[in-house]
Amino acid sequence: MTSVAGLLRELTGAECMDRLRHAAMVGRLAFLADGRPMILPVNYLVDGDAIVFVTEPGTKLSVVAGGAPVAFEIDESRPLYRSGWSVVVTGSAHEITADEELKRLRSGPLKPWAVNPAARWVRISIDHVSGRELEER
Amino acid sequence: MTSVAGLLRELTGAECMDRLRHAAMVGRLAFLADGRPMILPVNYLVDGDAIVFVTEPGTKLSVVAGGAPVAFEIDESRPLYRSGWSVVVTGSAHEITADEELKRLRSGPLKPWAVNPAARWVRISIDHVSGRELEER
Repeated sequence: MTSVAGLLRELTGAECMDRLRHAAMVGRLAFLADGRPMILPVNYLVDGDAIVFVTEPGTKLSVVAGGAPVAFEIDESRPLYRSGWSVVVTGSAHEITADEELKRLRSGPLKPWAVNPAARWVRISIDHVSGRELEER
Repeated sequence: MTSVAGLLRELTGAECMDRLRHAAMVGRLAFLADGRPMILPVNYLVDGDAIVFVTEPGTKLSVVAGGAPVAFEIDESRPLYRSGWSVVVTGSAHEITADEELKRLRSGPLKPWAVNPAARWVRISIDHVSGRELEER
């Protein structure tokens, strides 16, 4: 096994945001549940300068609000070529409760695949974003 | 928006293990870094009854050892059909240091895409596994 570190490229902040906006519909959210790391996939969208997703009341994800620290990831891989990229966001999560904002979001493009009408909407600030691309070889 | 809860199916433990073994090459690891949740993609394999992945010394992931609690996730989605599945493992992480075991793993099928020869191998116990499938509609 030889080192391939030279093929690993850091994505710029603009590239990371572009991929967050256009290159994925599903991301994974890492958060603390009872003090332990947990991870779940979510449908999401980039709304302004934040990530927005929807969760059902009473689920593990529903603990994520009130400024909880979270990490969010998207990626794509091409196993045949042993290549791929990933973007990781860290920030904090706040439930969206303003009627006007909820109305706007509910009529927007994010149509969660498995969420009921009592769903809660959560915004994640993008405090830090980084990304890496592993090029084909 | 209507509820689609009926289309969400829990995977059995055997189905989860089958997908971990055969349905993905890249998973995402959630762990604590400086007390905050972090998430990174990793190439992995199922070795016996555990998840094994490789990380480079000095990286964020290299803090994951010594029994640290972690969560690990794989998923697949078909956006056109708004369907998909995910499997989530929770367990603890231990660095693999036994020469014989390292030799066996290095000669095995896991060829990390971007890791150098000084890489550290980490085993994650599968303390709990669960999975969900959202069927096409």
